[in-house]
Amino acid sequence: MPVVRTSMEAGQRKVRIAVDAMGSDVGPEIVVRGSIQAVRDMAGSVEVVLVGNEPTIWAALRSEDAEGLPLVVVHARERIGMSEKARQAYRRKRDSSIAVCASLVQTGRAEALVSTGNTGAVVTTFLLNLGRTRGIKRPAIASVIPTSEGQCVMLDVGANADCKPLHLYQFAQMGRTYAQLILGISNPRVGLLNIGEEPSKGSALAQAAHQLLAQGRDQLNFIGNVEGRDIFGSKADVVVCDGFTGNVILKLAGSLASFGSRAIKREIQQSLAARCGALLMKPAFRSLGRRFNYEEYGGALLLGTRGVCVIGHGRSSPRAIRNAIDVAARSVRSSLEDSILQIIEADRTVARPIEAQVTPSVGP
Amino acid sequence: MPVVRTSMEAGQRKVRIAVDAMGSDVGPEIVVRGSIQAVRDMAGSVEVVLVGNEPTIWAALRSEDAEGLPLVVVHARERIGMSEKARQAYRRKRDSSIAVCASLVQTGRAEALVSTGNTGAVVTTFLLNLGRTRGIKRPAIASVIPTSEGQCVMLDVGANADCKPLHLYQFAQMGRTYAQLILGISNPRVGLLNIGEEPSKGSALAQAAHQLLAQGRDQLNFIGNVEGRDIFGSKADVVVCDGFTGNVILKLAGSLASFGSRAIKREIQQSLAARCGALLMKPAFRSLGRRFNYEEYGGALLLGTRGVCVIGHGRSSPRAIRNAIDVAARSVRSSLEDSILQIIEADRTVARPIEAQVTPSVGP
Repeated sequence: MPVVRTSMEAGQRKVRIAVDAMGSDVGPEIVVRGSIQAVRDMAGSVEVVLVGNEPTIWAALRSEDAEGLPLVVVHARERIGMSEKARQAYRRKRDSSIAVCASLVQTGRAEALVSTGNTGAVVTTFLLNLGRTRGIKRPAIASVIPTSEGQCVMLDVGANADCKPLHLYQFAQMGRTYAQLILGISNPRVGLLNIGEEPSKGSALAQAAHQLLAQGRDQLNFIGNVEGRDIFGSKADVVVCDGFTGNVILKLAGSLASFGSRAIKREIQQSLAARCGALLMKPAFRSLGRRFNYEEYGGALLLGTRGVCVIGHGRSSPRAIRNAIDVAARSVRSSLEDSILQIIEADRTVARPIEAQVTPSVGP
Repeated sequence: MPVVRTSMEAGQRKVRIAVDAMGSDVGPEIVVRGSIQAVRDMAGSVEVVLVGNEPTIWAALRSEDAEGLPLVVVHARERIGMSEKARQAYRRKRDSSIAVCASLVQTGRAEALVSTGNTGAVVTTFLLNLGRTRGIKRPAIASVIPTSEGQCVMLDVGANADCKPLHLYQFAQMGRTYAQLILGISNPRVGLLNIGEEPSKGSALAQAAHQLLAQGRDQLNFIGNVEGRDIFGSKADVVVCDGFTGNVILKLAGSLASFGSRAIKREIQQSLAARCGALLMKPAFRSLGRRFNYEEYGGALLLGTRGVCVIGHGRSSPRAIRNAIDVAARSVRSSLEDSILQIIEADRTVARPIEAQVTPSVGP
């Protein structure tokens, strides 16, 4: 079992976050740099526990100016690769950086986990260590998507490739809580992703989920179906879907900024005037790029588990890591899990009969 | 039964296309204008049969300069609304413009149908009138999507919200034929839309479909899974998916151009330099807008039915209608359906055992 070796500062009571230093596709140095940014920016309110190969982490820390910062290093002997199978990795690598992070949260030595590693392994390990929130059937990954008017929460974006109607109902409950507590939207509008406006449209799953959500309309502020064109159109604050569709959309949306800039670059090569125009528009493009840069959104949050778990992209920059730590800290401070628990409990009157009437129409 | 009333020109042997004049959200005049553009541009090779309320169509024709063009008007007493249920509309409105178009194709008085009306009603009516291509389990709607390097075919984009693995296998066969004959790609790369690269990733449907496609790898040039980020990245020429995911993506992709231009307009309001830059870039933006304007792509093609059926967006412009007629004519000339039939027949050696081994793992 790993032990907390060194605290660079014995500061005041802070939110303590376990960061998987080995989960990055671009090297532990990036994770270390992002963690340093986080504890600097959130001075006094966040402490980071860097988990992974200790010599590597120390080397990275030494090459930065990290003296006196609230950073702690915890050794983990193993590392889970990006292409490893989640359950296998969980069983075989009990001392992986992800497993050590999860056990730090489980034993109360950290309040949240941040990893940019193998998503499946992070979800599986965290879930098997911490367990689900009472009443939640399937935890889901929620991600913030930039829209024309601001942003929306989409879930599930990858934890459950096959879903049942009740899962989607609970995603709505969790997503709404997320939008309220983390995005500060007082009465978030919940939409069901579907391929038509009418309740009778869509897959068997979407039709059954629509029926459930319509029953919980008052509690959920359910506005009905939203279509592909509505996602960026700010029609809903929470977009509920199965993890297959959500993951495809998230990855597609994440590729748009670079695709758009490549397309524009190709166009302006044709004309000097256009190149001059692009030069004048550089600050506007940069601001636009920032708005659609997923790094700004601080990774995706696993909802419906005990404890807070934030999953970032494997190629996260230091800034993305910093923002993921920020989201983790805000989730801890807002007691997001307690609120989800309360909503599930309060909605039992709706959810119980729903649970009884739901037939597993789709999924393995 | 309606009769062909007037031919404005008794020309040479042409591809004759039945166009649903009543299917537009923006009025029959738009459909008439698009049809006039089509017969003008494709002089001598296309004849259009405009189907719908005769007085309305004639009024629209008179207000344009349509004298001497190969246009024919056929009366249809009824019109199917956008929100009507497909099967109900089919049963109750036997003399709708869609039904009359389909019967013109069925009786050989037209070789293709073009409609911008209620997609469900068009697919149902066409299918019930014309029937499926022999061997095809489920017809699918294929749409062309602009990508970073050119374009790709995606299917299904809405005909089948719930699919089985064998359906996806056949979508691959049909999509490949489409890419060869209509887009002119000699050996199209076929990808399966999924949420991970590995064969074991994804929903039960995606996993089973991957297995089938891998067996037909040689015939299909199957390159494996493609993810959301690969759609615009030109990784595959044919992207195979269920009609739920495909429809969500198509509608999302279709909204990107207007979303992008709104976002840019908002940015440049902040600065005079940026506004000047935008002015200089206007031609580049226009060219970019054209590339991502779905009107250019001539609507979606229903594959796996006897006869050719092209479905356009309800708000199609005259140019979009013209292009849809062009796609219909090219599909007729290339004998797309015959080629699909041949491929299904030739691939029986693979498909038969596949059919036997497939268990319906997903769907109602």
